[in-house]
Amino acid sequence: MKEKTFALLSGYMKKCMGDAAHDAEHVRRVLYLALEIAETEPSADGDVLIAACLLHDIGRAEQFANPALCHAQVGAEKAYRFLTANGFPEPFCAHVGDCIRTHRYRSDDPPASIEAKILYDADKLDVTGAVGMARTFFYAAHVGQPLYTLLPDGSVSDGRAAEPEGVHSVLREYKVKLEGIYGRFLTPKGREMAQARKAAAASIYENILDEVRAPYAAGGAVLRRWVEKT
Amino acid sequence: MKEKTFALLSGYMKKCMGDAAHDAEHVRRVLYLALEIAETEPSADGDVLIAACLLHDIGRAEQFANPALCHAQVGAEKAYRFLTANGFPEPFCAHVGDCIRTHRYRSDDPPASIEAKILYDADKLDVTGAVGMARTFFYAAHVGQPLYTLLPDGSVSDGRAAEPEGVHSVLREYKVKLEGIYGRFLTPKGREMAQARKAAAASIYENILDEVRAPYAAGGAVLRRWVEKT
Repeated sequence: MKEKTFALLSGYMKKCMGDAAHDAEHVRRVLYLALEIAETEPSADGDVLIAACLLHDIGRAEQFANPALCHAQVGAEKAYRFLTANGFPEPFCAHVGDCIRTHRYRSDDPPASIEAKILYDADKLDVTGAVGMARTFFYAAHVGQPLYTLLPDGSVSDGRAAEPEGVHSVLREYKVKLEGIYGRFLTPKGREMAQARKAAAASIYENILDEVRAPYAAGGAVLRRWVEKT
Repeated sequence: MKEKTFALLSGYMKKCMGDAAHDAEHVRRVLYLALEIAETEPSADGDVLIAACLLHDIGRAEQFANPALCHAQVGAEKAYRFLTANGFPEPFCAHVGDCIRTHRYRSDDPPASIEAKILYDADKLDVTGAVGMARTFFYAAHVGQPLYTLLPDGSVSDGRAAEPEGVHSVLREYKVKLEGIYGRFLTPKGREMAQARKAAAASIYENILDEVRAPYAAGGAVLRRWVEKT
């Protein structure tokens, strides 16, 4: 890819993502992770992959404004229009659009090409490990979700129990989603990189649970002793 | 402490903290951590400690609205007024106020009584370990700070270098503040509890740095090879 093409695509990505500096750093990590995977997939087309990585989340603002929209679908259409308008060959534009459309997994439209599989794996890698947990904390803070919830008996939930309507804690997100993604990678290198990060995420979950449960149990017992029923 | 006194103080705390459910969970953790420490400090007055823990952050809203205010000072004054207005003995109100005023450390006005030291340690414990890191992520998201920043050469900073004006990343917060607090506890039990959580925080910092640096280095090198200068 020519340097000026890279600058054109990066510029459009930044324009679409507005001031969301964190999102732009996510895009950069996905690009770098994808290129690391691509080194083990000699048939991958570098230009398609770079374009798809840079533009994969440009539909986020539309989905945020209207949650009924799918940012992968919107982003694919925007990328296709932008690339064709800028004179890229139609098959290239269509291929990049396909990668973007399928980076959000749907069983009836899975990533098909090697470039689509690499983008999918790279994007998913960014929710694994300690970085994936950090991003989950950031997201929870943005949407006003708590770190954990309490069970009816007042003890700290490990995230396996259903939570009240509208509540979705970080510990619950780990248990119902993050914990299970390590087996869902599509390339051998992506799977290997995910496995290398698995223990870091698990230990954050376990340490938080231990650190919160201990005082709730110990301090809670002292409190019951010190507060007299009247 | 009578159950109705506990309910009175809890109710006032929740009123002062508005809808900040996360802050109320912090207060609950601080209370439980303090009671765990108090079990090893037989001279501690349970009623003073419980009241001080419940009310220690009731000045947060005032500091948030006007950062020139100190939430510990404001909270101490509010607690004193609330307690005296509700008929608690003056020495009790003054003692609780002292604990709250000194829970934010100032070398010219350090925590003096055992109850003040316990509150200080319990509050500080909640920024140690994996929970402390989780709270730091939540706070960074609230105030729009990033996970990490890049050095001028494009590599990921480990947080030791100064950051641009107005920027204070999570990795920087760990390096300049969180990493050093483990030696600053005032009770033997608080120090022991902090030490037990130290490795969990350090490993989150190190895992994030490793996970981000690896793709920036590997993927960055591939990118430079694939993007031709024109």
